[in-house]
Amino acid sequence: MSLGTTAKWTPREVGELLVESLPYIQRFANRIIVVKYGGNALAGSDEATAIQSFARDIALLRAVGMKPVVVHGGGPQISAMMERLGKKPEFVDGLRVTDAETIEIASMVLLGHVNPQIVNAINSYGAHAVGISGQDAALLRVRQRDTRLGFVGDIASVDTTVIHSVLNDGAVPVIATIGSDGHGQAYNVNADTAAAAIAGALGAQKVIFLTDVPGVLRDRSDVQSLVAQATRDEIAEMIRTGIIDGGMIPKVESCLHALDAGVPDAHILDGRVEHVLLIELFTEAGVGTMLVKGST
Amino acid sequence: MSLGTTAKWTPREVGELLVESLPYIQRFANRIIVVKYGGNALAGSDEATAIQSFARDIALLRAVGMKPVVVHGGGPQISAMMERLGKKPEFVDGLRVTDAETIEIASMVLLGHVNPQIVNAINSYGAHAVGISGQDAALLRVRQRDTRLGFVGDIASVDTTVIHSVLNDGAVPVIATIGSDGHGQAYNVNADTAAAAIAGALGAQKVIFLTDVPGVLRDRSDVQSLVAQATRDEIAEMIRTGIIDGGMIPKVESCLHALDAGVPDAHILDGRVEHVLLIELFTEAGVGTMLVKGST
Amino acid sequence: MSLGTTAKWTPREVGELLVESLPYIQRFANRIIVVKYGGNALAGSDEATAIQSFARDIALLRAVGMKPVVVHGGGPQISAMMERLGKKPEFVDGLRVTDAETIEIASMVLLGHVNPQIVNAINSYGAHAVGISGQDAALLRVRQRDTRLGFVGDIASVDTTVIHSVLNDGAVPVIATIGSDGHGQAYNVNADTAAAAIAGALGAQKVIFLTDVPGVLRDRSDVQSLVAQATRDEIAEMIRTGIIDGGMIPKVESCLHALDAGVPDAHILDGRVEHVLLIELFTEAGVGTMLVKGST
Amino acid sequence: MSLGTTAKWTPREVGELLVESLPYIQRFANRIIVVKYGGNALAGSDEATAIQSFARDIALLRAVGMKPVVVHGGGPQISAMMERLGKKPEFVDGLRVTDAETIEIASMVLLGHVNPQIVNAINSYGAHAVGISGQDAALLRVRQRDTRLGFVGDIASVDTTVIHSVLNDGAVPVIATIGSDGHGQAYNVNADTAAAAIAGALGAQKVIFLTDVPGVLRDRSDVQSLVAQATRDEIAEMIRTGIIDGGMIPKVESCLHALDAGVPDAHILDGRVEHVLLIELFTEAGVGTMLVKGST
Amino acid sequence: MSLGTTAKWTPREVGELLVESLPYIQRFANRIIVVKYGGNALAGSDEATAIQSFARDIALLRAVGMKPVVVHGGGPQISAMMERLGKKPEFVDGLRVTDAETIEIASMVLLGHVNPQIVNAINSYGAHAVGISGQDAALLRVRQRDTRLGFVGDIASVDTTVIHSVLNDGAVPVIATIGSDGHGQAYNVNADTAAAAIAGALGAQKVIFLTDVPGVLRDRSDVQSLVAQATRDEIAEMIRTGIIDGGMIPKVESCLHALDAGVPDAHILDGRVEHVLLIELFTEAGVGTMLVKGST
Amino acid sequence: MSLGTTAKWTPREVGELLVESLPYIQRFANRIIVVKYGGNALAGSDEATAIQSFARDIALLRAVGMKPVVVHGGGPQISAMMERLGKKPEFVDGLRVTDAETIEIASMVLLGHVNPQIVNAINSYGAHAVGISGQDAALLRVRQRDTRLGFVGDIASVDTTVIHSVLNDGAVPVIATIGSDGHGQAYNVNADTAAAAIAGALGAQKVIFLTDVPGVLRDRSDVQSLVAQATRDEIAEMIRTGIIDGGMIPKVESCLHALDAGVPDAHILDGRVEHVLLIELFTEAGVGTMLVKGST
Repeated sequence: MSLGTTAKWTPREVGELLVESLPYIQRFANRIIVVKYGGNALAGSDEATAIQSFARDIALLRAVGMKPVVVHGGGPQISAMMERLGKKPEFVDGLRVTDAETIEIASMVLLGHVNPQIVNAINSYGAHAVGISGQDAALLRVRQRDTRLGFVGDIASVDTTVIHSVLNDGAVPVIATIGSDGHGQAYNVNADTAAAAIAGALGAQKVIFLTDVPGVLRDRSDVQSLVAQATRDEIAEMIRTGIIDGGMIPKVESCLHALDAGVPDAHILDGRVEHVLLIELFTEAGVGTMLVKGST
Repeated sequence: MSLGTTAKWTPREVGELLVESLPYIQRFANRIIVVKYGGNALAGSDEATAIQSFARDIALLRAVGMKPVVVHGGGPQISAMMERLGKKPEFVDGLRVTDAETIEIASMVLLGHVNPQIVNAINSYGAHAVGISGQDAALLRVRQRDTRLGFVGDIASVDTTVIHSVLNDGAVPVIATIGSDGHGQAYNVNADTAAAAIAGALGAQKVIFLTDVPGVLRDRSDVQSLVAQATRDEIAEMIRTGIIDGGMIPKVESCLHALDAGVPDAHILDGRVEHVLLIELFTEAGVGTMLVKGST
Repeated sequence: MSLGTTAKWTPREVGELLVESLPYIQRFANRIIVVKYGGNALAGSDEATAIQSFARDIALLRAVGMKPVVVHGGGPQISAMMERLGKKPEFVDGLRVTDAETIEIASMVLLGHVNPQIVNAINSYGAHAVGISGQDAALLRVRQRDTRLGFVGDIASVDTTVIHSVLNDGAVPVIATIGSDGHGQAYNVNADTAAAAIAGALGAQKVIFLTDVPGVLRDRSDVQSLVAQATRDEIAEMIRTGIIDGGMIPKVESCLHALDAGVPDAHILDGRVEHVLLIELFTEAGVGTMLVKGST
Repeated sequence: MSLGTTAKWTPREVGELLVESLPYIQRFANRIIVVKYGGNALAGSDEATAIQSFARDIALLRAVGMKPVVVHGGGPQISAMMERLGKKPEFVDGLRVTDAETIEIASMVLLGHVNPQIVNAINSYGAHAVGISGQDAALLRVRQRDTRLGFVGDIASVDTTVIHSVLNDGAVPVIATIGSDGHGQAYNVNADTAAAAIAGALGAQKVIFLTDVPGVLRDRSDVQSLVAQATRDEIAEMIRTGIIDGGMIPKVESCLHALDAGVPDAHILDGRVEHVLLIELFTEAGVGTMLVKGST
Repeated sequence: MSLGTTAKWTPREVGELLVESLPYIQRFANRIIVVKYGGNALAGSDEATAIQSFARDIALLRAVGMKPVVVHGGGPQISAMMERLGKKPEFVDGLRVTDAETIEIASMVLLGHVNPQIVNAINSYGAHAVGISGQDAALLRVRQRDTRLGFVGDIASVDTTVIHSVLNDGAVPVIATIGSDGHGQAYNVNADTAAAAIAGALGAQKVIFLTDVPGVLRDRSDVQSLVAQATRDEIAEMIRTGIIDGGMIPKVESCLHALDAGVPDAHILDGRVEHVLLIELFTEAGVGTMLVKGST
Repeated sequence: MSLGTTAKWTPREVGELLVESLPYIQRFANRIIVVKYGGNALAGSDEATAIQSFARDIALLRAVGMKPVVVHGGGPQISAMMERLGKKPEFVDGLRVTDAETIEIASMVLLGHVNPQIVNAINSYGAHAVGISGQDAALLRVRQRDTRLGFVGDIASVDTTVIHSVLNDGAVPVIATIGSDGHGQAYNVNADTAAAAIAGALGAQKVIFLTDVPGVLRDRSDVQSLVAQATRDEIAEMIRTGIIDGGMIPKVESCLHALDAGVPDAHILDGRVEHVLLIELFTEAGVGTMLVKGST
């Protein structure tokens, strides 16, 4: 292992900053933090660089005693591979029809491309990551949502045995959200929903959704209008009044599912900000939106 | 779970046969049995049927107290996907050149297609299987074999932590032999060699190579010339005199590596024979070739 | 250990039948199955043969991952020894008066003859059996039923520590139902009642009573009238209407006690049928009567 | 539990004596002490009283943190039962011929009479004792000594699993020395030899033989000539010169076997002296003979 | 270790007395017994002798399987050191004002003088004692009682982790009752109150207060008027009617706190009586006063 | 717990610096680091401030997964208290004569003043520290060095049981180096020597001596002449040639003792430099002198 150099800071500054982080490290020691990563955050011109930075942050969380669990999707990457293989997507009510060939491609892309990319990146920073499919053991058992959609599954049960074993070995579980019906058939599962369900089943302290927006905005054109913290009721009101709409609705709904499953707090953070996980967990700086169950 | 019916046998016959199998079950209780499956055995017109049958046998071994570990390759499937994606294989000295795109495709096919197919099949028979990549944790650390071959790796070290955790959970590890250099780069690893190394590192009782031939034949045109058992020295002599040649040489060499790593016996069995694993482990019938270290 | 041969079946048939049994093996994996054996089933011209066959079945159950616990009586054998020693049985209300000499003889016969016979037979099939007396540790603590009956005890408490230790060692507990009053005095305990109480205290999945009848018959002269399954209420009705009478009443009452103690199902099987345990547990064939708590 | 009264001593004297015993208790804390009890010590007019006293001492050893293991024979009791059943003993070279009926009777007497008598007595003093047969699990595996002697066995191997489980439960193992050939046949085993072998296999700190003599005497007519301590070589010399002869030879030979098996010291004590075990272990008083390996 | 001699008793008497103590040893096996020692009991002309005797009794309790926990104060010793250092005590409402210098001196005397004296004495009798401060880990977290009293603390929470670790190592915890506010400031805590709180938090079987009086007396001038046992209500009545007054009130109140915290019984014993702990725990002799929750 | 603020750095800088420290955190994860603190480092005008800073660094090491063990002396504080109590030090060959009163004072100062000061400071930073005396259990068993010196002890044996228990509870052991002779007598032990012996017995990765000099200097007047790293042989040569002399000799000798006891590396650092522990462990900056066994 080659050790980094800290030309940017004097040794004394390193010491000062490290002791500043002490209370944050103690606050989340041994806590499970589920991080939903992916899709848009993964795609783009500097995909590899973004994954490296994310992986390094995750390795740090593990090294200082937290138990991060990564859950990822990979929609854009699946679409790209479908195109490359000459397969044209179809949709019903805005949802992708997942026929036998599509689930095959999704499986290859998620398990064979996105997952090992994240696993390898985390491992390259001295941590131990282990890739897990929702089909492993009985992790994600699903039922079909709608026959017209084909192999799209809703989560019927979560068995966290394999995740706990990986955590107990001191490693980082990296989970691709392909589920199984128990009879050998794979189903695609929405990664946000899966992250919320897994966080609930694990008794996680936090679930963090890394997206490509700054968080919930009262005025989408004004980054300053960020909602730093909100309760269930406030979120419901914001949906009712149209402040939250479009693609943000499923994000906040996954957060609410996690809260309902007993996770104390759920975050929507901007995955494009470098070290956003560390900033959230190790500083008082307000980044993104935190949802909590009770009143603020 | 719906239970099968046994119309073929009277209840009493079922009882009689089960007690006949008692000494075999006891002999291998709690023993680790590494089974190399795949490549040619997987390919073909009734691939799905073959995997179902194999998976059911593996589920049975686990159910009666053995600890099977599946290691698989997938050469033909990689080639098929390369063709589909318009990528033409190149070779140096008969070995495939594995450039960046090829290792990407190999990863997708092994981790995203072959591995979950086996995992799902085993799970559909009531067992718990968990897919594992050689990149997980530090399972297979490799060094590059030859720069001209690209991302082809020789095994530098084996860390069995993740395999043991899966076994301790009562599940069946299913391992795809993509290794890592520890710096985030994936490498293709020969599955036979990997199976031998993993068997040695696990302290396995047996390693079994399922292939598409009956075993080692003294006369390749005569199935009756099957070598039922042979020692290191006898194998060396058969290679020297040309009795063993061609594609059988790497098979027997992997067996010898396993013996050298402390595995008591190594088998070459015909994966096309239905229930060949059960026949080998639960009857006195002579199938395939068994290699042992000492004198016969 | 010399391994058996299976001349009766082809190797392929062995494989086929074994995978047929897979769901049955999985269904009862790690479950405690209490088997009441003995008395009449033990006596007779081919006692040794019957015990060998029973022992082999028990060894198989253990080998495939179940946790069988054997409870036995030995009434006929006690009577035989009393006669041999010139001791004449006395009865009050149909129950044997158990004076000091009788309990001495019962102890010798159960602990010194019947119990080691079963233990040795199971051990001879490669399993580990351990003989246990209800007097060991505080397994069966009793109170005197009736001073006129002498040393006949009703179970006051069950301490399963020693049984669990034996099960955890991978062995088969074989229990003779002599209890103790905690002050050093031995008491005879009805073996059917003891089996039900032990099954309840252990949280067993099943209690099976092996007897010398086919099960509960609606018409005792017609084997075809076998009651395959019945609930508490149905059994009560059958006793009320006289369908169940005589020696069958205590059997079904022990079953009901076990159900009341939380054992999900209780069976009355014909111990004279070879492999009847395996037929019950590994086939769909209807043998004997199964009692369950709820409605059928 | 009703507590005793100590009218004989003032409360202060009780306190003084208890603290006197402190170093003795600490010296043997958690140590395994194998005590051979029986045969002649058991027989006689006040057998029950003797067993009660012995059992109470054993319960005390366990209560203060030692791990006593009782091994017993029962020769006189076997002979008595044989006579009662009209069976006449036969001898070859002074050793009893043990035919099928004799081993049956020995089994009944040892396992069904002597063993539960000791178990019950210990349990009546608030300890937990568990009766064990040498046939349980694979505790005493034997080979036939001489076909003319019938079912008389020499110990081939000792498997202490069941003893350790009982000790770990905080209970006292009470072992009857009937062994097994692994094929279901019982054999009688000399209890002195078995005690030595078991002590060695357990890594015991001491093995104590309770007999009906004061120990090794230089002059058998003079109790004052007691040999308090002796080494291997001194014992050999005393046998050679005839100081030790007759029935004492097998006793000292069992002691020597225990020393050879790694037991630090072996004692021959007079079981007729009340509390002789406590006197040996808790006072400096010289009772009986202690054999040690090295020089005195 | 040199072993004591028991010239006072014959070996047989030693045996008889030891077996008399058997039921007492069994009754409290593995039970936690909190013993408040100190203050006046420690002071005086033969302080060292008294500690030796106390330490030997504690070592015996541990040796026979109880789990004694010692809690001590040291008021007289603190006063003596204050005088030696020229510091004059001040009082408010009869309670000592504990300024910064006083808490410094108290810390030195309790942790640096009294505590190691007890620890060393117990260790000198072959046991393992470990000194613990209420400041260790988060054992005694306190809040300030009254600003006028300075660093006098009331217990806010008890964390028994460190005590359990010491007990699990087979050692005797010896606790000095200096607590902490969690921000680095030490506070003096009343040792009687602390003993009650610790006993409650540990789930102790008993808490015993060693003082310099015989117990609760109905008539303080008449030792014969000792109240052997009393309930909560009876104690309340005795306080109301003035039978209990003065310095005895805080003692009985600490007892009542312990009962309220779930400790089954609380004792006030005369620490000046040699072996008083052993007399209380190992004989039926009535010494001191036992308080129990329910009716007598 | 109130969380700090990091006004000095932007949130992004916090993230950058934390990931820089990742390889250092991983390198020493779960390693035992023994830190000798005290004496001169503790004394002085801003003693409290220095302890706070040291304590915070120690809390951080624990929080990120290392296992720091603090060993401290307190010579100057002992001298100060002796003076205050009117006790005049005496010396023999430059070593302090430690009579009964002196060891009493040393015990009070080390256990009752210095030790709880460090313990409380560490606890105030959210960690759990536990004060330990060398007299606890059998941690430091000593023999008298020289009767003329009185109660000055050389270490005879180290029993690390209590240290391991504290470490396993996730806490920081803080050890005062008063030892015991096993018969209740306390002895003063040199803290440097004790730190080396404890590090060896624990199998520590490092022992670090915090002093009031920059490390070993080739020219004591030139801080630039610091020896960054040296082997055993080089140190011996520097002592021979007089480069190392005076008070530095015992420091380097303690380092050499630690190396001999199997500790891979030993450091002499300047305890006056703020965060010197963090600078040493988390940056590449060269501070102090590192001694290693082999060649550089």
